[in-house]
Amino acid sequence: MTLGAKFDAGREAEAHSRTSHRVTFDPGNQQVWYLPGETLLDCARRGGVRVAAICGGRGLCKACVVRITEGLAAAPSAADSEFFSPQEIERNWRRACQTLACGDCRVEVPARAAAAPVRTQVETEDVWVRPDPAVRLCPVTVAPARLAQPSADDRRLIHALSETWPGAGSRIDIEVARTLPQAVRANGGGVSAAVRFGEVIGVVPTGKEPLLGLAVDLGTTNIAALLVDLRTGRTLGSQGIENPQTAYGGDVISRIGYARRSPGAPRQLRDLAADGINLLARMLCEQQSLDPSRIADVTVAGNTAMHHLFLGLPVDRLGVAPFAAAVSSGFDVKARDAGIMAMPGAYVHLLPNIAGFVGGDHTAVLLAIGVEQEHHSVIAIDIGTNTEMSLIHNGRLLSLSCPSGPALEGGHIRCGMRSAPGAIEAVKIDGIRVEVETIDGAPAVGICGSGVLDAVAQLYLAGVLTAGGRMLKDHPRIRLTNGQPAFVLANEQETGGAPVVFTQQDVRAVQLAKGAIRAGISILLEEAALEAGEIGQFVIAGAFGAYIDLESAIAIGMLPALPLERFAQVGNAASIGAKLALVSYPHRATAQSIAASSRYLELSGSSRFNNVFVRSIGFPERKEA
Amino acid sequence: MTLGAKFDAGREAEAHSRTSHRVTFDPGNQQVWYLPGETLLDCARRGGVRVAAICGGRGLCKACVVRITEGLAAAPSAADSEFFSPQEIERNWRRACQTLACGDCRVEVPARAAAAPVRTQVETEDVWVRPDPAVRLCPVTVAPARLAQPSADDRRLIHALSETWPGAGSRIDIEVARTLPQAVRANGGGVSAAVRFGEVIGVVPTGKEPLLGLAVDLGTTNIAALLVDLRTGRTLGSQGIENPQTAYGGDVISRIGYARRSPGAPRQLRDLAADGINLLARMLCEQQSLDPSRIADVTVAGNTAMHHLFLGLPVDRLGVAPFAAAVSSGFDVKARDAGIMAMPGAYVHLLPNIAGFVGGDHTAVLLAIGVEQEHHSVIAIDIGTNTEMSLIHNGRLLSLSCPSGPALEGGHIRCGMRSAPGAIEAVKIDGIRVEVETIDGAPAVGICGSGVLDAVAQLYLAGVLTAGGRMLKDHPRIRLTNGQPAFVLANEQETGGAPVVFTQQDVRAVQLAKGAIRAGISILLEEAALEAGEIGQFVIAGAFGAYIDLESAIAIGMLPALPLERFAQVGNAASIGAKLALVSYPHRATAQSIAASSRYLELSGSSRFNNVFVRSIGFPERKEA
Repeated sequence: MTLGAKFDAGREAEAHSRTSHRVTFDPGNQQVWYLPGETLLDCARRGGVRVAAICGGRGLCKACVVRITEGLAAAPSAADSEFFSPQEIERNWRRACQTLACGDCRVEVPARAAAAPVRTQVETEDVWVRPDPAVRLCPVTVAPARLAQPSADDRRLIHALSETWPGAGSRIDIEVARTLPQAVRANGGGVSAAVRFGEVIGVVPTGKEPLLGLAVDLGTTNIAALLVDLRTGRTLGSQGIENPQTAYGGDVISRIGYARRSPGAPRQLRDLAADGINLLARMLCEQQSLDPSRIADVTVAGNTAMHHLFLGLPVDRLGVAPFAAAVSSGFDVKARDAGIMAMPGAYVHLLPNIAGFVGGDHTAVLLAIGVEQEHHSVIAIDIGTNTEMSLIHNGRLLSLSCPSGPALEGGHIRCGMRSAPGAIEAVKIDGIRVEVETIDGAPAVGICGSGVLDAVAQLYLAGVLTAGGRMLKDHPRIRLTNGQPAFVLANEQETGGAPVVFTQQDVRAVQLAKGAIRAGISILLEEAALEAGEIGQFVIAGAFGAYIDLESAIAIGMLPALPLERFAQVGNAASIGAKLALVSYPHRATAQSIAASSRYLELSGSSRFNNVFVRSIGFPERKEA
Repeated sequence: MTLGAKFDAGREAEAHSRTSHRVTFDPGNQQVWYLPGETLLDCARRGGVRVAAICGGRGLCKACVVRITEGLAAAPSAADSEFFSPQEIERNWRRACQTLACGDCRVEVPARAAAAPVRTQVETEDVWVRPDPAVRLCPVTVAPARLAQPSADDRRLIHALSETWPGAGSRIDIEVARTLPQAVRANGGGVSAAVRFGEVIGVVPTGKEPLLGLAVDLGTTNIAALLVDLRTGRTLGSQGIENPQTAYGGDVISRIGYARRSPGAPRQLRDLAADGINLLARMLCEQQSLDPSRIADVTVAGNTAMHHLFLGLPVDRLGVAPFAAAVSSGFDVKARDAGIMAMPGAYVHLLPNIAGFVGGDHTAVLLAIGVEQEHHSVIAIDIGTNTEMSLIHNGRLLSLSCPSGPALEGGHIRCGMRSAPGAIEAVKIDGIRVEVETIDGAPAVGICGSGVLDAVAQLYLAGVLTAGGRMLKDHPRIRLTNGQPAFVLANEQETGGAPVVFTQQDVRAVQLAKGAIRAGISILLEEAALEAGEIGQFVIAGAFGAYIDLESAIAIGMLPALPLERFAQVGNAASIGAKLALVSYPHRATAQSIAASSRYLELSGSSRFNNVFVRSIGFPERKEA
């Protein structure tokens, strides 16, 4: 089972009728008819070939880098020289989103640009909570209809329910009603009604199959889901895939931009999110030989933009001040109205958002770490393109979001890539010796988030970077391009191809990212008149946060220099929060009260933030490594 | 605005590619490409030409009679001679459902077969009830979002609601949410929320427009609707149209049969019912210069089969013992899930059914006549193909349904037709003098229900029929065909075309119908150990019942010989019941208790019914006219 940009057979036929050119994508030798005027990125998307496009295909990043290995492509633009060295241009490296084909051609998509299967942190430690789900399964025996007493199917079912489960069910969902005559006669009338607050949302033959729930962490980059037995609270399986919307923009802002560019785009993004969740449900159920139509309840935690795109809410206003969300409260929607396959009358519950840039995923993290019962001073932080963080202090909750950019996830980094085989995830520099670790031990092809953080820290600790972030040129691993230095992390011999380098520009990007994060932390502390040392626990949530080296993060000043034991890298806590809200209905009220009681600090356009941010860009004093 | 079988452009193009034959339908000169193998009825339906088909196109009735005026049609079948005289066959009269075209041809659809605009009894006296609707309109002022307090649109709306209307609304329908950013900013935030039990189902600019509701009587033959101001309870307009499903069967049984014959048919019938209701809503709103999207609530009363077809519930089991309905209880469904255009989150409420053949329309009649407060002994009856009746006696309610067939509505009657211009609606026979009245005074083209009843009564009173129903042959108006007598109600000179006759077979059909009805009445009385004379009020509901001559009905023994003042012909009381449930929410609970407390007597396969039925077929002793 795979999922990608959908192959559009209609447009492929149209393309064929208008052209005789074909583009062949490697690896995979996949041929796609080329529609005149489209870019290689458009062509790849149409053909279902996955090419990363962090900026959404607007030519702002280099994520979609490809090499034309045969045939003709349009000449490189002036802008290309900003992204590529003359040698790279000569070797036909191009950005797929900016390049047209002029005839048959063959295009190599390097591992760095291919959106490969991703490492998602869904193996997070499971939590147990007393099951108190919104949906209950009520086994009954429905009497057959008799001529002498020709009672309707709905009345016989509701009557049977009221006998065994007083007060359980009195209404029937229309889609359940449409299959009721068949359903109540199955298994000789020995059936079980799935009931949600008086409404029958499904009728199944009574048997041993569990009552299933799906807890979803709908991230900008990845979607992760847990399949849960609602009656025991046990997690039956977990799975992550890349968010299929990624083909239309790697970050929230470019995704919103895409949604605004064409009338059909919001619907397309909405369908892609639903497709992704449905695929996860099918994969998880298949692993357990269960039927996805037995899923009786679904919870979704996503950032505000993902929440809106999934629900089909307008996102226009999320991108402009005052960044007002359409919906913040916890929201229930019929699964069918959100395109999710489940029991005929099932609902999807979306966890409440806190603000336009602090979404239900952060609420889920706060729910997972139990902030409502917390008596310490705690900071919870989820690092990403946008970094959300909250301070819990004296029973009060203060949240903010800071624009940390994609650098820490490998975006806008010269050799940046996702967490995929061959990505450098750890770096050690000892004098002139450089050691790197790659995911799966594959030859290095690029560098992912945790590697980026390590690289900067190690370059700084090794004296290659000044405290201001300037890259010194006297290390033997330094190469100069147009006078700009770059540090070679893996050379041609080590990679068996292009070298993996870390440039001065990359260092600057990381400084901006870590500066924004540290500024956010400082402002939270200032608001509560706390010193960093007074923070009893510092919780780092999210897939990226799970893999970072804390010492590197402290070394570059991204995180305050607390004793390491005060940090907790909790991985995908948003999934856990979604699971809590799924298994235990009262946790939805808790999430609602967390979101509603949180005070949100808007940093956008704040001169205070800018001041603290500028102070936070440099590196702290070096300590002995 | 017109509505008919939908013109299917796709199939029309397909037809054109496969044939060069065209069928031209008169009047109207409408040309339709002829798809090889289809009947003239199929062709007419595809082209949107309306031809009645009481039996659903199975060759069992003669409703779809047409004349081939030019070109070729397949030779008449042996069965045609049962339906037509040799002269008629010679003049190319055929049943459209049994006739193929062999080349270009021109087909005349006579007024009798064209489904003309119908007379529906929606002008029934209006009732007033204290408004207590399910939906309330709550004007509020929604504060703008501010950067310092970037509260989401849903929270600001719910907050504004809670300030002015405590407890009014806490949830928002997904379709309302999808337009929320625009809606809450309209009119400077001066908006009104339509709220239904805590759920916001619409947001409109605050203004003078009424909060609209639609009360629908979804009949097998006709659909009638009342547009109501929910806040005053005032009826703003009423309108009736033929049920667009009629093209696929004139009565419930043939409609159910059609639904079972092909997988797509239930969906088609469901869409047609919704189309009809939506058309009525548009017509009624247009008359008042109102916007149908302001309709905030809809109630529908229909017989059980119409109820099921409209909701998309399976009807298979309605046609076989024990005739169990899928759903009987009062049912709420989102308007969008039923295909009804209204406010984005509006609901449709279906009145509860009593049994498989006593539906929500009968419940609505009982609600309209206030049976729950009735202290007399009352019989309420709705005459149709199926006649439903209830006896209210000593606070108890007994209901039954009897198969009276279509004869009383002009179906399966040689010259039978709908209530349309030219239909004979009253007959007076005085010796050899015959006087007829037609609808709109047009030249007679056929005979409709009230005329059928009059004809039999007058033939009996004039001595043309014996007490057993045999037609004597000595009246000058009698003509013999194959030895079978027929009475000429209007001859060629009077009609300017074919004569309108009433045959021995027609008399027999009416005897079966009125015998079934009278048997039902007798059984109700027997069950309560009452004599007919003890009935204090005899309520006759329905369009047909509104037009019948009571003396004729008594003369042939269809109704018991009570003093005329005890009868009440209340017309479309089902519409009134639907309106009560629309304007006053508590009336829905009353309807539910009426339906649930009614004892239903199943007559199907009952030897007791058969005995009483046989006794009821003959005519009672003649009284002085």
